[in-house]
Amino acid sequence: MPPLPLRAQIREVGLRDGLQSIQSVLPTAHKIEWIRAAHEAGQREIEVGSFVPARLLPQLADTAELVAFAKTLPELFVSVLVPNLKGAERALEVQADLMLVPLSASEAHSLANLRKTPDEVVADVARMRAARDASGAKTLIEGGIGTAFGCTLQGRVEPAQVLHCMQALLDAGADRVSLADTVGYANPAAVRELFEAACKIAGERLWCAHFHDTRGLALANVYAALEAGVTRFDATLGGIGGCPHAPGASGNAASEDLAFMLADMGIDTGIDIEGLLALRARVAQWLEGETLHGTLWRAGLPKTFGAAVHHALSV
Amino acid sequence: MPPLPLRAQIREVGLRDGLQSIQSVLPTAHKIEWIRAAHEAGQREIEVGSFVPARLLPQLADTAELVAFAKTLPELFVSVLVPNLKGAERALEVQADLMLVPLSASEAHSLANLRKTPDEVVADVARMRAARDASGAKTLIEGGIGTAFGCTLQGRVEPAQVLHCMQALLDAGADRVSLADTVGYANPAAVRELFEAACKIAGERLWCAHFHDTRGLALANVYAALEAGVTRFDATLGGIGGCPHAPGASGNAASEDLAFMLADMGIDTGIDIEGLLALRARVAQWLEGETLHGTLWRAGLPKTFGAAVHHALSV
Repeated sequence: MPPLPLRAQIREVGLRDGLQSIQSVLPTAHKIEWIRAAHEAGQREIEVGSFVPARLLPQLADTAELVAFAKTLPELFVSVLVPNLKGAERALEVQADLMLVPLSASEAHSLANLRKTPDEVVADVARMRAARDASGAKTLIEGGIGTAFGCTLQGRVEPAQVLHCMQALLDAGADRVSLADTVGYANPAAVRELFEAACKIAGERLWCAHFHDTRGLALANVYAALEAGVTRFDATLGGIGGCPHAPGASGNAASEDLAFMLADMGIDTGIDIEGLLALRARVAQWLEGETLHGTLWRAGLPKTFGAAVHHALSV
Repeated sequence: MPPLPLRAQIREVGLRDGLQSIQSVLPTAHKIEWIRAAHEAGQREIEVGSFVPARLLPQLADTAELVAFAKTLPELFVSVLVPNLKGAERALEVQADLMLVPLSASEAHSLANLRKTPDEVVADVARMRAARDASGAKTLIEGGIGTAFGCTLQGRVEPAQVLHCMQALLDAGADRVSLADTVGYANPAAVRELFEAACKIAGERLWCAHFHDTRGLALANVYAALEAGVTRFDATLGGIGGCPHAPGASGNAASEDLAFMLADMGIDTGIDIEGLLALRARVAQWLEGETLHGTLWRAGLPKTFGAAVHHALSV
């Protein structure tokens, strides 16, 4: 069995992947409060929004303001999503620490969602890299490969195609690459296999795994990815977001459940889980009427959690 | 990485662990319909009830009748739970294929729940073994070790204590032993560690893993147990049952979700998942007002499910 890592990082993407999927528009003041409290609870990577036209996603129109605020918090690594060169220019302007460029390995999903082929996105990334290098900004470029485990439109997505996209993104100048199970099709065996292959290609540049909990497998998939060497995971507080094609189905991996699982296995995330649960309760109030997910908020922490987690067997 | 097994078995325990935990008393005719439809959907191991006094669990008073019916179905392996020698005698009388004797590794839980110490349960098992051997019945005896990953009453349960109980059960004549996370305290790392150690002690006699989904980790724990060599899992249709101390929290691993995860990883369970989902819908009607769990019934099967699951990478 491969050893588990001693540390792992949870990137909070609730303010982007979560909020873009739900009806409510959260006021900027609440988002700032969310970022501040998440930071207080020990979260050190937050995707605060997306530089897309406000007419497409009015929920995320305040992204520049959120980056500016988030950058005032010590040791916080601030990400944004950018769908195109224009978005990337704004990310460079506000000096985000990282910009995530989504690419769909599924041609069908890519055309429907991004209105570009995967190759066109790769060409965009090359232009973004040139712009970044010319600007002198330190913003990292992450190529985020979505529908990496299948697609609701085209069905199966070949692992070879996913790995081909990954290599192309790296060749085009992406500093980081990641794999996302955009529609909740992944299973632990597929995760283990694809992430092992991805690690071989990208090495240290393999940045993150992003799982949806549509079929209840997000945490099982995280565990399989940990075994494959992944140490960074996207998640959303209260599991908000997820697949609009399965109403009522669970959304993203819930940050608080993931933080609990990792900590209970003795993997340090730096997160104060009680603090995160308290924040979840506030966000649930702000988003009244929206469906939140997760289990820890109801079940509570086990009596055994805390001082003595995951002792080695002494037999 | 250890290879995953080609086949795994799901033991349906909804009629026992599920129904004993909820208010509704399901009529015998519905239970018979449940068993018949589960068998039709390919389930080949069912725990149909428990030989406990009817005044304690009126929900399960028809266990003898259910065993008699279940034994008429071809290739169905019929289990019952027995808390004591009297229950074991009834199980032998009706010629159940297997009787599961619960033992709590937590002394506190054992006394509160079974009114016996673990040692007293082990002594019971020795008496059951003698009774079984004297009767000439073929009923297997399974020692099911509960609170194996911790206890809501005493907190931590030492793995050494769990393994000590396992050895004692085997020495007393148990044909099979299994480990249960009775209160939903297990995590994948702990599962991997404890089941690896258990496999070393019990070998082929290590029969089953039983996980609750109280904190959303049941399927992650199944995956970790698969890697440790376990190939048989308890689950309940619709995830019914679970921990009465966490109202609203998820119950057992849901049979249909587990069957999906295993099949999607290319592990054969013999189960027709559509058939199981149809049965779940009927059971949900019968149990109107009770909380059911699981995700697959809402999200549906992935478009990729079926013909081409879990291809090997061809890169």
